Amino acid sequence: MITLSLIGIGSGNPDHLTRQAMRAMNAADLILIPRKGEGKADLAELRRAIVAEVVTNPANRIAEFDLPIRDEATTDYRRRVDDWHDAIAGVWADTIAAQLGQAGRVALLVWGDPSLYDSTLRIAARLRPAPQIEVVPGITSIQALTAAHAIPLNEINGPVTITTGRRLRDEGFPPGVDTCVVMLDGECSFRHLPPKGLQIWWAGYAGMACQITESGPLDEVCERIVARRAAARAEHGWIMDIYLLRRAPDHAKP
Amino acid sequence: MITLSLIGIGSGNPDHLTRQAMRAMNAADLILIPRKGEGKADLAELRRAIVAEVVTNPANRIAEFDLPIRDEATTDYRRRVDDWHDAIAGVWADTIAAQLGQAGRVALLVWGDPSLYDSTLRIAARLRPAPQIEVVPGITSIQALTAAHAIPLNEINGPVTITTGRRLRDEGFPPGVDTCVVMLDGECSFRHLPPKGLQIWWAGYAGMACQITESGPLDEVCERIVARRAAARAEHGWIMDIYLLRRAPDHAKP
Repeated sequence: MITLSLIGIGSGNPDHLTRQAMRAMNAADLILIPRKGEGKADLAELRRAIVAEVVTNPANRIAEFDLPIRDEATTDYRRRVDDWHDAIAGVWADTIAAQLGQAGRVALLVWGDPSLYDSTLRIAARLRPAPQIEVVPGITSIQALTAAHAIPLNEINGPVTITTGRRLRDEGFPPGVDTCVVMLDGECSFRHLPPKGLQIWWAGYAGMACQITESGPLDEVCERIVARRAAARAEHGWIMDIYLLRRAPDHAKP
Repeated sequence: MITLSLIGIGSGNPDHLTRQAMRAMNAADLILIPRKGEGKADLAELRRAIVAEVVTNPANRIAEFDLPIRDEATTDYRRRVDDWHDAIAGVWADTIAAQLGQAGRVALLVWGDPSLYDSTLRIAARLRPAPQIEVVPGITSIQALTAAHAIPLNEINGPVTITTGRRLRDEGFPPGVDTCVVMLDGECSFRHLPPKGLQIWWAGYAGMACQITESGPLDEVCERIVARRAAARAEHGWIMDIYLLRRAPDHAKP
């Protein structure tokens, strides 16, 4: 039997690691590290650094593998993602079989938390025979964002919607809430909202040493965020960012 | 100058502690531990146990204080909460002044994460002179819930709303999403929803050693959760629970 441990490692600060994550890494016979290519080299490097620092079990092995590329010729989005996940599951299965055979403990280090806008659980569900799956929760970039700004996520007893940049562009500010968190936004989609009455708290590289933040009324800081994001992306070669939007009290939903 | 460190300690599993949290606890001159009374004795006890296990800095002092009681004679809800937060801030200020005077590092251990349905940031904002506030993110019960069930929080690129039991009762399933997480629900408010097409993943004491879980179609497991929650509450003297509701694909919002 294979046990597959999906370990949330937090949003890029090695000190986001929990004791549970460190124990799970040390309990693993095999840790799989995906290589995502040049553009995201920092993230594979961070995984290697975390393993080197945390894993003291001499029996533990590391296996790196190249993440398959999505076939952009597949026009249907869902099909393209499904095929890609199938291909990743295939590489996992081959690597596990080659390293461990039929039994052992395998760990995958997941950016943030395995539950949030992450494919690892869906890929793991494709493995046959089905492994025993364990999830170790990790600090998400949402918590890193609110910590960076020292703000509450919700208003008192208020609801919060977590959504994506694409949905914000297509559907506007989510209905029924005064607070939303936007993730997976490569296009500064907040630019497409009517800014009146909206406050934004933004962070690039939330939680990491190179973290940058901006906040204020959306109409005042919108262009500054766009410019700062572009400059940071140019400097680092990549960026991950996240933001929280809140309606000011006098613009709150009825 | 006082620095106030609000440290997320996770949802009840001491192994949810991050390295950042452990460092912040050890960097503190003073750790404040609120006593909430008999009913929640487990939680103060957990804080004490965490401090005893983690803090190795001999200069660190612990100060326990009795949390003021909300004045239920104040009929306006917001006013009642505001007055209560003022009273708590007063106790913090008195305790800090007595222990440290005007300068030093104070830490408060916050259940879950300081950003999520927690008053600590709002109470801290009342202190004068204003301390320097630092937030250390912690694992929330949302992550403990999804880890317990090994499920994703969101559907692929889908939005998620986090809401409260009261809002679920008053407003029904949140608009614009197929997934919602319900917190602060003392009344099994899922009972008031039309159950058709809804799946539920429920956990009591999510992340703790005594964690209990149930999941399935809401119409099938609803009564089982109600009964199990009542029995667990009777056994432990208290309960904290959380759940995720998801519309089945054929009942998804248009």
